[in-house]
Amino acid sequence: MLIKEIEQFIEEDLGHDDISCTLVPDRSAEAIIFTKEACTVAGLGEAGAIFNYLGVRAETSLKEGDELEAGALIFRLKGGAVSILRAERLALNFLGHLSGIASLTSSCVKLVRKHSKSTRVACTRKTTPGIRKFEKRAVVAGGGDAHRFNLSDSIMIKDNHIQLMGIEAAIRAARKASFTKKIEVEVESEGAAVLAAGLGADIIMLDNMKPEEIVSTLKVLEEKGLKQSVLVEASGGISRENLEEYAKTGVDVISMGALIHKARWTDISLEVINYAE
Amino acid sequence: MLIKEIEQFIEEDLGHDDISCTLVPDRSAEAIIFTKEACTVAGLGEAGAIFNYLGVRAETSLKEGDELEAGALIFRLKGGAVSILRAERLALNFLGHLSGIASLTSSCVKLVRKHSKSTRVACTRKTTPGIRKFEKRAVVAGGGDAHRFNLSDSIMIKDNHIQLMGIEAAIRAARKASFTKKIEVEVESEGAAVLAAGLGADIIMLDNMKPEEIVSTLKVLEEKGLKQSVLVEASGGISRENLEEYAKTGVDVISMGALIHKARWTDISLEVINYAE
Amino acid sequence: MLIKEIEQFIEEDLGHDDISCTLVPDRSAEAIIFTKEACTVAGLGEAGAIFNYLGVRAETSLKEGDELEAGALIFRLKGGAVSILRAERLALNFLGHLSGIASLTSSCVKLVRKHSKSTRVACTRKTTPGIRKFEKRAVVAGGGDAHRFNLSDSIMIKDNHIQLMGIEAAIRAARKASFTKKIEVEVESEGAAVLAAGLGADIIMLDNMKPEEIVSTLKVLEEKGLKQSVLVEASGGISRENLEEYAKTGVDVISMGALIHKARWTDISLEVINYAE
Amino acid sequence: MLIKEIEQFIEEDLGHDDISCTLVPDRSAEAIIFTKEACTVAGLGEAGAIFNYLGVRAETSLKEGDELEAGALIFRLKGGAVSILRAERLALNFLGHLSGIASLTSSCVKLVRKHSKSTRVACTRKTTPGIRKFEKRAVVAGGGDAHRFNLSDSIMIKDNHIQLMGIEAAIRAARKASFTKKIEVEVESEGAAVLAAGLGADIIMLDNMKPEEIVSTLKVLEEKGLKQSVLVEASGGISRENLEEYAKTGVDVISMGALIHKARWTDISLEVINYAE
Amino acid sequence: MLIKEIEQFIEEDLGHDDISCTLVPDRSAEAIIFTKEACTVAGLGEAGAIFNYLGVRAETSLKEGDELEAGALIFRLKGGAVSILRAERLALNFLGHLSGIASLTSSCVKLVRKHSKSTRVACTRKTTPGIRKFEKRAVVAGGGDAHRFNLSDSIMIKDNHIQLMGIEAAIRAARKASFTKKIEVEVESEGAAVLAAGLGADIIMLDNMKPEEIVSTLKVLEEKGLKQSVLVEASGGISRENLEEYAKTGVDVISMGALIHKARWTDISLEVINYAE
Amino acid sequence: MLIKEIEQFIEEDLGHDDISCTLVPDRSAEAIIFTKEACTVAGLGEAGAIFNYLGVRAETSLKEGDELEAGALIFRLKGGAVSILRAERLALNFLGHLSGIASLTSSCVKLVRKHSKSTRVACTRKTTPGIRKFEKRAVVAGGGDAHRFNLSDSIMIKDNHIQLMGIEAAIRAARKASFTKKIEVEVESEGAAVLAAGLGADIIMLDNMKPEEIVSTLKVLEEKGLKQSVLVEASGGISRENLEEYAKTGVDVISMGALIHKARWTDISLEVINYAE
Repeated sequence: MLIKEIEQFIEEDLGHDDISCTLVPDRSAEAIIFTKEACTVAGLGEAGAIFNYLGVRAETSLKEGDELEAGALIFRLKGGAVSILRAERLALNFLGHLSGIASLTSSCVKLVRKHSKSTRVACTRKTTPGIRKFEKRAVVAGGGDAHRFNLSDSIMIKDNHIQLMGIEAAIRAARKASFTKKIEVEVESEGAAVLAAGLGADIIMLDNMKPEEIVSTLKVLEEKGLKQSVLVEASGGISRENLEEYAKTGVDVISMGALIHKARWTDISLEVINYAE
Repeated sequence: MLIKEIEQFIEEDLGHDDISCTLVPDRSAEAIIFTKEACTVAGLGEAGAIFNYLGVRAETSLKEGDELEAGALIFRLKGGAVSILRAERLALNFLGHLSGIASLTSSCVKLVRKHSKSTRVACTRKTTPGIRKFEKRAVVAGGGDAHRFNLSDSIMIKDNHIQLMGIEAAIRAARKASFTKKIEVEVESEGAAVLAAGLGADIIMLDNMKPEEIVSTLKVLEEKGLKQSVLVEASGGISRENLEEYAKTGVDVISMGALIHKARWTDISLEVINYAE
Repeated sequence: MLIKEIEQFIEEDLGHDDISCTLVPDRSAEAIIFTKEACTVAGLGEAGAIFNYLGVRAETSLKEGDELEAGALIFRLKGGAVSILRAERLALNFLGHLSGIASLTSSCVKLVRKHSKSTRVACTRKTTPGIRKFEKRAVVAGGGDAHRFNLSDSIMIKDNHIQLMGIEAAIRAARKASFTKKIEVEVESEGAAVLAAGLGADIIMLDNMKPEEIVSTLKVLEEKGLKQSVLVEASGGISRENLEEYAKTGVDVISMGALIHKARWTDISLEVINYAE
Repeated sequence: MLIKEIEQFIEEDLGHDDISCTLVPDRSAEAIIFTKEACTVAGLGEAGAIFNYLGVRAETSLKEGDELEAGALIFRLKGGAVSILRAERLALNFLGHLSGIASLTSSCVKLVRKHSKSTRVACTRKTTPGIRKFEKRAVVAGGGDAHRFNLSDSIMIKDNHIQLMGIEAAIRAARKASFTKKIEVEVESEGAAVLAAGLGADIIMLDNMKPEEIVSTLKVLEEKGLKQSVLVEASGGISRENLEEYAKTGVDVISMGALIHKARWTDISLEVINYAE
Repeated sequence: MLIKEIEQFIEEDLGHDDISCTLVPDRSAEAIIFTKEACTVAGLGEAGAIFNYLGVRAETSLKEGDELEAGALIFRLKGGAVSILRAERLALNFLGHLSGIASLTSSCVKLVRKHSKSTRVACTRKTTPGIRKFEKRAVVAGGGDAHRFNLSDSIMIKDNHIQLMGIEAAIRAARKASFTKKIEVEVESEGAAVLAAGLGADIIMLDNMKPEEIVSTLKVLEEKGLKQSVLVEASGGISRENLEEYAKTGVDVISMGALIHKARWTDISLEVINYAE
Repeated sequence: MLIKEIEQFIEEDLGHDDISCTLVPDRSAEAIIFTKEACTVAGLGEAGAIFNYLGVRAETSLKEGDELEAGALIFRLKGGAVSILRAERLALNFLGHLSGIASLTSSCVKLVRKHSKSTRVACTRKTTPGIRKFEKRAVVAGGGDAHRFNLSDSIMIKDNHIQLMGIEAAIRAARKASFTKKIEVEVESEGAAVLAAGLGADIIMLDNMKPEEIVSTLKVLEEKGLKQSVLVEASGGISRENLEEYAKTGVDVISMGALIHKARWTDISLEVINYAE
């Protein structure tokens, strides 16, 4: 986290002056952060940076993506009591929100692994405004793929582009536009998938297609010798509930906005365990 | 939304250059935004500001907190196709995330109303870092209370403060600190609640107390003639599932971090309906 | 002070390049900061942060609000001569401006104490744009009350609100809007004061009322049993000159924009006392 | 004012959400801003920019530095009542603070003109952190000179520089450093003034010298034929009270930190005169 | 250009106050911007945004990348004389710098076209800090390829990575890291090129290899049936002078830091052609 | 460099996440930065600040403006391999760009010294947007003069100003505007130069005048006794190629936009020399 990011978040949670804390006589203290439920932990770097900015030493033996039991220790903190109390809510908001995303991702990846060794689980650009960078990292911590970061990151040819200029012209223009970026084409039918693959798309996104349509599309691509050169991604309306049906298709990538927008926070807590005399 | 906020969010989603859109011949277009499921809408101002910044006219007849049926129209858009496509994801992220919060809040308020006419449903400081302002507004749109915004907003005496200086000294110091701010004291027992109320706290937060303990505490406060001058808030581990039990206690305020951290996004979509020749 | 604030102030006073200092051979030096006149000191944290940012060690045994004699030492500095010279003007501007505010506040509080033990002296939102946070802290350092920080901080129902919707509707709406914020109502007559108190306002601000009108209003509120539940604030045209007349009324709060906009800077100086060979 | 400056000031005064104003039904309104006391007006551009940002039309026939009678109209406003109320305090803070500085400057210039046609009255770098740009403009509006803006603006050789490297070496280095910047040397004696002028300084600042010493120094410079090529500035402890003594010396420039740090705000008010039905 | 970017650049060139312009009586004026030498124009959007921010109407019939003769008109301007003078230098700095880059790029592309129809000319990350976005766009305007934007944009395995973990492990890790990003491997020998292509790299960058080595490497890749699936890029020490030798190899991409760091500004001028009476 | 500047540059080159580096196992490493060609070095402070921000120790025994042989060592680095790789490109971009400017400046100064001992070589406001501060410092490192920094820095009366108000009025207004700033007048003829000098300009800029016209103008100024009080600057179309002709005129200052816009980067490289086991 950049210092300007830390300061933006601290300003939001502290405001102009933290009155409650000015009442308290400052003393050095020790505290712990632990999880109240099993989770895949994420946000360690973000929480650590916040404590560090406020002069609190935060020690952890964990790394992003570690699987924790309920009750597991996350951080051991040492510093001024006032600083610990000031950092508490903000650090926990990062840990709880990001661990929630990592945990949902991890559980989705496990479901997929029951049916496919190589299928990736990816998030999308449906992220909370302002903290995409952190949320995408949490998906990666959970074993998922960050997908493209923003509109500049890779070239995505969507239905609107196709409607405006036709699929051939769109792919041709895309290939000309950049040699460093992959070209992904969003299609809604088997025919369009074959067409896009034949035109040299790097990734074919099957939008809102049913598992059986995906299977059939993969088969046709294979038959036409096009499967080797493209990655096929299933997308649209996929959640933890119906995920296995998609995993069984053996598609290369399953992308789910739900990794972020259906995640719920992990319940993580801070407890002061000792005040110096 | 301030211009600097809009630009921060646009930079995040656009990156240095939106290649996909540069491929497309720009044409003026019309589009609609509608909800795919029933919801309490929020984020109209945020989405409108984003479209406006990019030169897209966004018209709506709705206001924050309106209850919508599945399929209901939210915005009618007119502008360059490229600008509409550029604003799409960001505007939908705000609408989906904030309407999700407003909808959960609204449904919680309705549950509470079945048992209590006046009990407020409030969120907490457990908000997604960077967009607390917008999330708190969504809670208000859903009929909830924003609670205190940050550490400077009102004085909250928590267990750590009490441990560090004792409840009497803490309340006395708080009263001296500011005449414009309410003093809220977090207690974990009936006895502490009575003590805090007697010392002149404005709000007593019953932390992690069971519904029956809340009922009993309210009764004792009433008996001692202290109930008139304080608001009593129940907090800790309350979610939509166990909410009614708390509503039945007749407590003044029920605060739920869950309004934000258990909300799921409303499914809201944009569709281009017409391109000019 | 956040790093971004320090850098904003340093950029203002340094510009793109401090030519004069680049002429000088840098040497380590010692300097002192002292006050040339008796004062209540404020701005220690701000000045310290500036020196610290530029790598100068700044030691002080004082705390905000200490009363100093003319000639008293404020800081003992140690660092590169160039850095000390660079920080000098900016640090002194904070110390001089803020100590001036603290000193005026402190002298006003003393005047009030001659007549009332509990009456608070508060500033208003009439502050120098850009540094309200620091000016309000200086008022607190001088023994005053910071009053509400900004428009989001507490609810203030002013004449314009009353004109637009009537006092009853305004207070009712305010009570519904938030349970964490006090409601202050600005009134210009005894009758309106009684009405507002009866409707449940937390603070009644008597705007531009004469001392004798204040006395009479306090008496009526007392007689009607409304005084216990409200704080009464006198405001409008009060300065150090006429302050005692208001103090004699025994009103709860006297608010004075003058604490800030009539303060004059304390004369504080830096002197280099030693250059290393 | 840059948009980022306006937004910084608005954020400071509005906070996350202006609750009071959300209570009010918005209506279009007309208001006036007028001065309650005679003044030299300044801050018109700043106030206008704030109203403009919030969508309020602000019309004035005045220009910076106009002399106003008590009661004179400054702005006529038209816009939403809520927007007018939101801009009110911030716009008045600029107008009151800056007109106070312009008025004090103007009165000092008039005192000086009684004794000298050409002597300039200048401010210094003793300005309120964060708004130097606006305060210096107010000095100019009042007929004063802005002096150097910051450490990069011109070269100032002060006692510390001289102590560190000697006056000759300092001036020689300064002349070499830049051909576009004037060199000002701060001296404390007649001898040093003559030395500095002889070495080619552009401006000699007589620091803390008494009027009679200034007269004598000017005379010696004249006699030695050095007066033509330098400007002589008197500085140190000069306020409105002792200003005329310095004006009588005929020195070229009198610089006074007091223009800013002893100014008091002009009493300027906003009144809503009409609400649309 | 975002408003915050425009304001950053304007602050740099204007400073706190543009004194020269405040001397001038403002009048509406017309001006033209034209090129004094043949060029490939770039920076039209940037210059236009600057004029627009300052209220000057800037009309052009050109688009990025147009080839201009010496003397050709670029913009026709209409607005206040002071605003035109204020925007002049900044707008010309963008136009001159970016057109210089576009022109060098365009001339390099033409040289390459003499020998190869499809070889791309790309820039690198050797760009002027702070304005990469604009410089990369200028390369594109000149017919070049922007290459990857920053370290997050695509995966580049360089000698240091290979040294730290071996080429196989590095490529395997890269493939696992993201399915949306191409993997580029930097090699220094034919053998390493074949190895990387065999391991599934998307782009092979031949670093500092001579044209004859490039030819031989391409031939081996072709023979081994690996050429179809990779793009081959030549890089290192290539400038306009030796470019044709590389073009003759038929390599897919030639990347040249020189497009930016050896470009010289195009000589573009502004002339006021008319002042309104 | 301010922290906010460092973070802006790092964000530009790193993006949201440096994928390549996350693949690498981090190890502590040592590296060197050296120049591949003879140069006048500049940018040491900027590069050092970047390494320092990323936790890499960067040691150098050089100072800005030192003349280096090809192969000379610039920095010795010690830190995490990932951090060194992350800082590499950005630090080298500063070193290469700024050393290029310093080297061109230095070579121009040497050419001028062959003919004139005192003539200064200065840059102009033709600088790359966003990094003027650094480029001007590089000119100074190379022995040149930074000229005025921006429009607020000194008063420049250009042809447009003269056209709008006449030369006499313009100079009179300028003298009145500020006593701390020099007045520079841009003229295109001997007559105008004499007029401006007579009116008290501090600097006369001979715009686009040929060497023989410059000689003749200097002679006339000398004859009229005006030369002593003004500096004469030659400007317009001067590059390294025709510089000596101007140097021979003995003019006080030669200003060249070319110092920046015709500079080419110095070829500077980083090499990792050791990885810890």
